[in-house]
Amino acid sequence: MNAQPQRSAIGPTAPQPALLIKRVLHARERSLQIAAPLSAEDQCVQSMADASPSKWHLAHTSWFFETVVLQPLVGSYQVFDERYGFLFNSYYEALGARHPRPQRGLLTRPSLDEVLAYRAHVDAALASLSPGTVQTAAPLLELGIQHEQQHQELMLTDALHLLSLNPLQPAYAAERVLPSVELGLLEWRRRPGGIAQIGAAGEGDFCFDNEQPRHRVLLQPFEIASRPVSCAEFMAFIDDGGYRRAALWLSDGWALVQAHRWQAPLYWDLHEPAAPQQFTLQGPRPIEPLQPVCHLSFYEAAAYAEWAGARLPTEFEWEATARDDLLDATGAVWEWTRSSYDPYPGFKPMAGAVAEYNGKFMIGQMVLRGGSAATPVGQARVSYRNFFPPATRWQFAGLRLARDLA
Amino acid sequence: MNAQPQRSAIGPTAPQPALLIKRVLHARERSLQIAAPLSAEDQCVQSMADASPSKWHLAHTSWFFETVVLQPLVGSYQVFDERYGFLFNSYYEALGARHPRPQRGLLTRPSLDEVLAYRAHVDAALASLSPGTVQTAAPLLELGIQHEQQHQELMLTDALHLLSLNPLQPAYAAERVLPSVELGLLEWRRRPGGIAQIGAAGEGDFCFDNEQPRHRVLLQPFEIASRPVSCAEFMAFIDDGGYRRAALWLSDGWALVQAHRWQAPLYWDLHEPAAPQQFTLQGPRPIEPLQPVCHLSFYEAAAYAEWAGARLPTEFEWEATARDDLLDATGAVWEWTRSSYDPYPGFKPMAGAVAEYNGKFMIGQMVLRGGSAATPVGQARVSYRNFFPPATRWQFAGLRLARDLA
Amino acid sequence: MNAQPQRSAIGPTAPQPALLIKRVLHARERSLQIAAPLSAEDQCVQSMADASPSKWHLAHTSWFFETVVLQPLVGSYQVFDERYGFLFNSYYEALGARHPRPQRGLLTRPSLDEVLAYRAHVDAALASLSPGTVQTAAPLLELGIQHEQQHQELMLTDALHLLSLNPLQPAYAAERVLPSVELGLLEWRRRPGGIAQIGAAGEGDFCFDNEQPRHRVLLQPFEIASRPVSCAEFMAFIDDGGYRRAALWLSDGWALVQAHRWQAPLYWDLHEPAAPQQFTLQGPRPIEPLQPVCHLSFYEAAAYAEWAGARLPTEFEWEATARDDLLDATGAVWEWTRSSYDPYPGFKPMAGAVAEYNGKFMIGQMVLRGGSAATPVGQARVSYRNFFPPATRWQFAGLRLARDLA
Amino acid sequence: MNAQPQRSAIGPTAPQPALLIKRVLHARERSLQIAAPLSAEDQCVQSMADASPSKWHLAHTSWFFETVVLQPLVGSYQVFDERYGFLFNSYYEALGARHPRPQRGLLTRPSLDEVLAYRAHVDAALASLSPGTVQTAAPLLELGIQHEQQHQELMLTDALHLLSLNPLQPAYAAERVLPSVELGLLEWRRRPGGIAQIGAAGEGDFCFDNEQPRHRVLLQPFEIASRPVSCAEFMAFIDDGGYRRAALWLSDGWALVQAHRWQAPLYWDLHEPAAPQQFTLQGPRPIEPLQPVCHLSFYEAAAYAEWAGARLPTEFEWEATARDDLLDATGAVWEWTRSSYDPYPGFKPMAGAVAEYNGKFMIGQMVLRGGSAATPVGQARVSYRNFFPPATRWQFAGLRLARDLA
Repeated sequence: MNAQPQRSAIGPTAPQPALLIKRVLHARERSLQIAAPLSAEDQCVQSMADASPSKWHLAHTSWFFETVVLQPLVGSYQVFDERYGFLFNSYYEALGARHPRPQRGLLTRPSLDEVLAYRAHVDAALASLSPGTVQTAAPLLELGIQHEQQHQELMLTDALHLLSLNPLQPAYAAERVLPSVELGLLEWRRRPGGIAQIGAAGEGDFCFDNEQPRHRVLLQPFEIASRPVSCAEFMAFIDDGGYRRAALWLSDGWALVQAHRWQAPLYWDLHEPAAPQQFTLQGPRPIEPLQPVCHLSFYEAAAYAEWAGARLPTEFEWEATARDDLLDATGAVWEWTRSSYDPYPGFKPMAGAVAEYNGKFMIGQMVLRGGSAATPVGQARVSYRNFFPPATRWQFAGLRLARDLA
Repeated sequence: MNAQPQRSAIGPTAPQPALLIKRVLHARERSLQIAAPLSAEDQCVQSMADASPSKWHLAHTSWFFETVVLQPLVGSYQVFDERYGFLFNSYYEALGARHPRPQRGLLTRPSLDEVLAYRAHVDAALASLSPGTVQTAAPLLELGIQHEQQHQELMLTDALHLLSLNPLQPAYAAERVLPSVELGLLEWRRRPGGIAQIGAAGEGDFCFDNEQPRHRVLLQPFEIASRPVSCAEFMAFIDDGGYRRAALWLSDGWALVQAHRWQAPLYWDLHEPAAPQQFTLQGPRPIEPLQPVCHLSFYEAAAYAEWAGARLPTEFEWEATARDDLLDATGAVWEWTRSSYDPYPGFKPMAGAVAEYNGKFMIGQMVLRGGSAATPVGQARVSYRNFFPPATRWQFAGLRLARDLA
Repeated sequence: MNAQPQRSAIGPTAPQPALLIKRVLHARERSLQIAAPLSAEDQCVQSMADASPSKWHLAHTSWFFETVVLQPLVGSYQVFDERYGFLFNSYYEALGARHPRPQRGLLTRPSLDEVLAYRAHVDAALASLSPGTVQTAAPLLELGIQHEQQHQELMLTDALHLLSLNPLQPAYAAERVLPSVELGLLEWRRRPGGIAQIGAAGEGDFCFDNEQPRHRVLLQPFEIASRPVSCAEFMAFIDDGGYRRAALWLSDGWALVQAHRWQAPLYWDLHEPAAPQQFTLQGPRPIEPLQPVCHLSFYEAAAYAEWAGARLPTEFEWEATARDDLLDATGAVWEWTRSSYDPYPGFKPMAGAVAEYNGKFMIGQMVLRGGSAATPVGQARVSYRNFFPPATRWQFAGLRLARDLA
Repeated sequence: MNAQPQRSAIGPTAPQPALLIKRVLHARERSLQIAAPLSAEDQCVQSMADASPSKWHLAHTSWFFETVVLQPLVGSYQVFDERYGFLFNSYYEALGARHPRPQRGLLTRPSLDEVLAYRAHVDAALASLSPGTVQTAAPLLELGIQHEQQHQELMLTDALHLLSLNPLQPAYAAERVLPSVELGLLEWRRRPGGIAQIGAAGEGDFCFDNEQPRHRVLLQPFEIASRPVSCAEFMAFIDDGGYRRAALWLSDGWALVQAHRWQAPLYWDLHEPAAPQQFTLQGPRPIEPLQPVCHLSFYEAAAYAEWAGARLPTEFEWEATARDDLLDATGAVWEWTRSSYDPYPGFKPMAGAVAEYNGKFMIGQMVLRGGSAATPVGQARVSYRNFFPPATRWQFAGLRLARDLA
């Protein structure tokens, strides 16, 4: 396999080998910390086809390093278990047959202990990479770190979803896990429009292929809110009949509202109007008015914006603003944009097996920007493009408003 | 709640209290032994909506004793957890709302350890029942034993199904778990017909309501095979195109063959024609020609019988024969009969909450008779009526042939 | 093709050729009369997968005569259109590939005019059969008449269903089409039990293979209502919360009540409680209290019986009673029995292609007895076994009560 | 209702009243001509949920004029049938409840004759509009013409789909209905990039709201094919294993290929490799190598482009090129672009009920440009944005290639 990403795609200047491996192992360790509060049972079960068990995440990220770095580059590397390629390949057609995604939760074996042994095996091999190999593999090791971090956020989103479906409403942890933010006053930042530079420059820092090439985009004048929409603001939308007024919704969104009887964001419980609750990683908690509203689909975000006499920003408006003036509370929740996840002009996938990493999903998805409280530190960046289908609700996703300027 | 079964339904003479409780606790212990080879992960996952996790079986049978015996009859009994009634009620509408069956596998909490503590709590309460209470509760304690045993067989069928779906093909146990049988020559037992007594007499031994009332049935002359159909015989059916010949099949069965591409019994793997394999509790094993064929749907059993120039026996033919002359290899596999699971004339459900035990399922199911290698010792009896929908394949079910006599 | 039914199965004494053909043509003409009030559009559309367009019924019954009688027995017969075999074969695997049932409504071609020409072509060939051929084909011609009549009832049930789904609520006809019956007082007929003869004697009159062989069945003492349940009686069940009380329902039935929100028989409209309506072949009409309740599933029939402290009769109880003492209002609605549609002891399907006529459906269905107002005159008979899956509601089906005698 | 579109949206200069009404009636007449070759049966049946019966199209377009023009503006107008609003409203939430889309094929009533009478009634009212009313209603009458024309194309696409599912493979017409085009040599038109004006100017000619506001877009240098891809070229893709190579496909597209076993464009029949056929409005016809390939999904178009070392153009590249240099064979097939159907910056829906016309569908769809052989003359224009979900195959849609210039 030749999984060499384009140099320009993931950073031209290789860091010092020892430092890079230290960062790799630190990222690997962080995944274990996230899984630690979960029992072997919690880590095995799949709550829906879109989610994956924690154990699967732990194994898949190990398989990624094994397949992309260790096997091609370390002649002496012993594969931990030949059968794991089939089990823990996520979606790489070029890497052979794989276990169907909706059946990940049936894998009671390998056990969690075996998966932890697999991780240790891979980590030991990474720790003993020669400096020369690290140098060669630097882009792929960077990619592995980023990939590991993406799955760290997914472990939390997926665990929250699983626990939310349990009638016992168990907490992931007794104490607050994710940093909290209290939103201030909403201000409008005026932007004159004009040519903006969009996309990662790719001059040293890591970026994914989908953030490139950097290119120029012409923007119209607009204004954008200084901060995301709060729970209190979204509650006003609900109180004003937001979930019952077809005129506020895109057609597909309205169909979902009716089919699934949506009445509030996912995880909200309004049965006691005087004490509205939200299911969180700490279990049920009162909804906090000044926190950003979260666990919205794109459709709910767009309906809110319509109700508020505004709209969602495009990803270009978002990025152009954030470059100059990092918006308030960025990084508190992912922010749905009004941009479909399309390739940038001149987009080229990474070379080799990792070509499938991003490009093949560029249809039917909307871009989210900014990062959430569950996003690992250091991953959020101005050019990062997260993406999910518009009906997705279990992510840590909210919105920020924008408006045209005449 | 008044869950007093009719005395006639489950045996009039109460056994000695100490002996009865000893039998209860022995049955309870047996469930734990069956679960023991399975990890907490294995015991948590649900492989399909029809199956349940082992942990759920362990909890549900405890809930049954708690709800049917301890709560109504022991004033001082402390319910282990008030929330478990919702989680572990299987299908009793009279006992309140319950967790949806297809979501049993989402219950990573309570943990296996908590469920084991629940079992210990219930067992301790059962062990300290006063002799007078045991006397009063004797029919329900007997019912609880039978119920526990039914779930013991299901734990094995469900575990086998779960493990079979794992690409690693793990074994439940390294050594043979279920007794094996080697079939002898097939002989035909001729029966003259006439009036037969069908159903449990109900004079001392336990029986379910669905085995009663004993009544007379008029049979035509017939003959019945001395033993079930073997794997070798079923292989001949496959080799003769049995799964490709519509004329052998009931209409619904043929639709299933085509929709699911059935080509052999469930768990059979014929990819290596020279070495056909079967997935078992010991993992993949060569198909043994002289073992009874197993894991058939009713449709496959009926198609085989058609191919063999025979038919399935009715449950009445089966019972009448077995009363006189216990058929060879009875108890090796459940045997599909040509009888729909209808109420006997004069059928009365048990009184109280357990009224829902059997009667409400008397539609859309076929009767199986005899018992399987996984059926707990002492449960199989001549009048026992097992029942499943005709498309069911994951049970330990095969068939025995019968023929009309002119 | 050799589609010769067993002589015993469909009547040993062949009628006079001229008379038989006259009866055939009369039955054929009757189908056209039933279709006449329907437009070409009405006759083309399929309202659900279980129903068929009228045009399809008209063509299929013609194909049946063509395939079973004309092609095998008349050397000079010219097939009307070679392609119709594929289009109008209903379910005969032995007669080749066929158009999928759920797509019958896509057949805008052949047009109704072409199908009528097809009928005329077949009728002309039947009208000119030589006396010798009629003699030879007599059993199959009788079968063709019966088959035609079965489809006549289905044309009415299917047309009613289609029209009922139209928001305009159009009538099939302005005036009453089906004979009406006003039920009298309900009396209980006591029956002592004992040996009963069940099934058609097969000595001259037509019967289907599923009505044979005649055999003896042992009945327990019981009593049976003199007449079917009325609309007024069923309304009392509804008013008493019948559709909201799980304890009255079989488990599968209760699941359907909840999934489909059943609250009344199909076609009933209780939105105006003071003026309950029923959709009929004449369009919406007030529910008539003394008419038999109709358009029930087996589950609703069984729940009503449970509520009434009674049960459904078995098909054997029904037949044994009806032989001695033809029950009141028999022939007003089909009556669900508590008998699964199983083969009689010694059952043998008809020979040849028509072997598939009945036998392959003997699973998953319940027997209905008696006949409805839509059943052609002369088809209803004491031994006739109609059958449908228990969830079926669009047939003209109600119920009659029975009770055990101690 | 106030359904006044913005003046700027649909053309500021009202035409002469008499001329405008003449154009309205001409468009109305054209719909009848398109329906004429179809029988009442053909016009009643719905082949899938996405398609509509011809009769429904004829009625819906009449309802549109009645609801948007006649009722609000003509005091004396008598609604033809009050119930039709429920039946023939397509998707306007603001205009009340409506019949479910997948059940449009159940409407055997009103009959085709009644729908034709409805059309005549509406046409008569339109013909007798006073000049002043025409003046007032001019923008809505223009919209009605465009709407009528959109449904004219749909009548042909839907009829083709219905007939294609009929095993008799009937032709809509014996002779060629749609203009044919023979593609010439493919040339690449180089475009330097830079600022392009996108969207309708709205200075007199009709346009939809989704074509506005006109705005500037910055393009990178690119080249675009002079003509669409031909059948012969697409056949080469198939021959080269295009439908079997995952690497060519977007992830969702590959899933569809596997689920539906796509092997060629919709309506192609390659069973006789020497004589490949295509189902057309004239019935099965040999595939013509130099015709544009048609009836592709977006996924197939994108996979072809990938295979050809190219990509799809964006809608902006397409429009910018077409403004300067009308591309060859534009108007032969709709051309899938690589642009999601997003609102233009500053997009404002039309006012009133017609606000729902376009905007609420701006999610999950891809833009097609150019027009097809089935598009009414005069409707295709450089700024026109057609849109469908990417899995759509039954439209007259193909593709044109583009490439980046370094």
